[in-house]
Amino acid sequence: MSRRTGSASRIGIVGGGQLGRMLGLAGIPLGLSFRFVDTGADSPAAAVGEVLPGPLDDPRLLRQLARGSDVLSFDWENASVAALARATRGLRGRIAPPLRALAVGQDRLNEKRLFERLGIPTTRYAAVSTLPQLRRAVARIGLPGVLKTRSFGYDGKGQAVICSAEEIPAAFRSLEGAPLLYEEYVPFESEVSALGARAVDGSEAIYPLTRNWHQHGILRLSLAPWEDAALVRQATRHLRAVLDDLDYVGLLAIEFFVRKGRLYANELAPRVHNSGHWTIEGSETSQFENHVRAIAGLPLGNVASRGHCAMLNLIGRMPPRAELLAVPGLHLHDYDKAPRPGRKLGHCTLVAASATERNRRTRALLQALALKLPDLP
Amino acid sequence: MSRRTGSASRIGIVGGGQLGRMLGLAGIPLGLSFRFVDTGADSPAAAVGEVLPGPLDDPRLLRQLARGSDVLSFDWENASVAALARATRGLRGRIAPPLRALAVGQDRLNEKRLFERLGIPTTRYAAVSTLPQLRRAVARIGLPGVLKTRSFGYDGKGQAVICSAEEIPAAFRSLEGAPLLYEEYVPFESEVSALGARAVDGSEAIYPLTRNWHQHGILRLSLAPWEDAALVRQATRHLRAVLDDLDYVGLLAIEFFVRKGRLYANELAPRVHNSGHWTIEGSETSQFENHVRAIAGLPLGNVASRGHCAMLNLIGRMPPRAELLAVPGLHLHDYDKAPRPGRKLGHCTLVAASATERNRRTRALLQALALKLPDLP
Repeated sequence: MSRRTGSASRIGIVGGGQLGRMLGLAGIPLGLSFRFVDTGADSPAAAVGEVLPGPLDDPRLLRQLARGSDVLSFDWENASVAALARATRGLRGRIAPPLRALAVGQDRLNEKRLFERLGIPTTRYAAVSTLPQLRRAVARIGLPGVLKTRSFGYDGKGQAVICSAEEIPAAFRSLEGAPLLYEEYVPFESEVSALGARAVDGSEAIYPLTRNWHQHGILRLSLAPWEDAALVRQATRHLRAVLDDLDYVGLLAIEFFVRKGRLYANELAPRVHNSGHWTIEGSETSQFENHVRAIAGLPLGNVASRGHCAMLNLIGRMPPRAELLAVPGLHLHDYDKAPRPGRKLGHCTLVAASATERNRRTRALLQALALKLPDLP
Repeated sequence: MSRRTGSASRIGIVGGGQLGRMLGLAGIPLGLSFRFVDTGADSPAAAVGEVLPGPLDDPRLLRQLARGSDVLSFDWENASVAALARATRGLRGRIAPPLRALAVGQDRLNEKRLFERLGIPTTRYAAVSTLPQLRRAVARIGLPGVLKTRSFGYDGKGQAVICSAEEIPAAFRSLEGAPLLYEEYVPFESEVSALGARAVDGSEAIYPLTRNWHQHGILRLSLAPWEDAALVRQATRHLRAVLDDLDYVGLLAIEFFVRKGRLYANELAPRVHNSGHWTIEGSETSQFENHVRAIAGLPLGNVASRGHCAMLNLIGRMPPRAELLAVPGLHLHDYDKAPRPGRKLGHCTLVAASATERNRRTRALLQALALKLPDLP
């Protein structure tokens, strides 16, 4: 523990991707220091702290990280719960967010059960492990539907849509071997995400609602604040229910589908979230700063909005830096990653004085980058 | 040069204090990387880049820094001009801001001559090296006056006020050995600073005027934007004159005294400046980001204000972190330096929707920290 304040000063993070990088950028001004475990010493977080290179579940590395940290956290939702628990055994430092939240977020079945228990609407589903189980699930829930791995799915990976009975065997074979979930296909109208932080003392800070647009299964664009009062009410209620139930500490994100004015919880992420990157410029206190404030045992910061924001992911290849920065008011976040098709390499954010102005500038930016997204306002 | 954009990617900085730290925090999101030469490997900038430890004018270290950088810069205004010039000899990388600006900023006589040549009002002065010269200067310029070292003065150090003829010998002895300047004492009403950035292509971005309050010779508080139209006009004209004359690249600060509605140039700093720290939260693009954009050959960012700001330096000892962060809307910047009387350890910034609200919150913060400053609005 810090000599000065009683709050944590040395933050250890399992995973050193762009989320770790942005956590470091937010926490260094608070006087916090960061260390990471990541597979490559040249990971994005290496710019803001020491990286212990190796597998993210390596017991020796995790123990080393835990011993040198006042609090242990993770920027990767598939970090090993068991390995993290072992790494801190007998040490005084804490883990935040709580491992229970990490375990829930790692298994779609646990997520569904949590949502149901808290009265949060979610799509109908059935856990399946065998082809006969899948056939029974399809018969009960109906078609079309989506077969998903219960764990390790991200950015649209680990999913197979089933539209007809003939497709059942192929879909099952494509994902066979992992525990699966069959879910009804909801013809949702849009996706929104709710982000909030909870401090050690239970105080909470809820960000404005964010609306998201995906492309090829990957988040491409977020607009916020998304000012739909009825949706905001539902999202805030659901988010607070989960934060309190998990006795959560840190930033939590929940993705919701929207249909006919009602939210259906899709999944939760026990960490800072891509759809909250706009808060760096768009909120008094960013999701990254509030996450590190919370896990370090510090008071949360004000989450008032500074304007109307658009966050665009830069995927696969980075446009020339000078061209991006020549766009008036554009804020660039380059993760310093090697380009690869489908890889998130950075993002950029626009902040405008009105939603109309934001939408106009967003459309102009998408056009300049030769990107097309449906249903933009 | 970067493979990707033709702009510089690797920034080498001589000096690794809090200015280097905040330059790194601003430049890392742009995909830039930072290395520093600094006397201690545990310097504030070590959180955001590699520090080559050693004397700041060590030829071998500077050469090593220059070879590994696309552009060489400095966060310390007393960096050796000759050593920097030698370090980059024969290399393709550039130095920014220009060494001519660094040389001017290192010598009060050069500053005075530049201001005079560009028609910028400044206080009357005389260069002196001997006691008889000082007596003649006092006879010509009058009393009271201030004897200053021409170089290496900062935070009120290297100065002696002379109120009567009897004090002349003691004042001279206290600074003897260094080249000196005797200046008339201007009973100024306030101090303001003008900050602006200039890009490689000559485009400029001028920040709103900042008013400063000092305590024991050290900057304590800055309020911005300081909305005095007549002063803003003068400051902008003078700043542009200097930026253009020096064919400047980067962020330049000029401190002015104010008397009877007129600005008198006091000194310039060829780097980011303490009185511009409010721009991190208070401007669309901070002084740090615009400095790195400029020196990396990138377009400047928008400098529109996001509100009415107060920046308070935290000097000598840091208040408890959790107490500071519990102040609503307070943004903390802890430089991670060991406490020492008179040492700048961090700063904090408030951003308000109106000047009235800012002033109210500033007074409350000063009271909470048991600080008193005269002439606050």
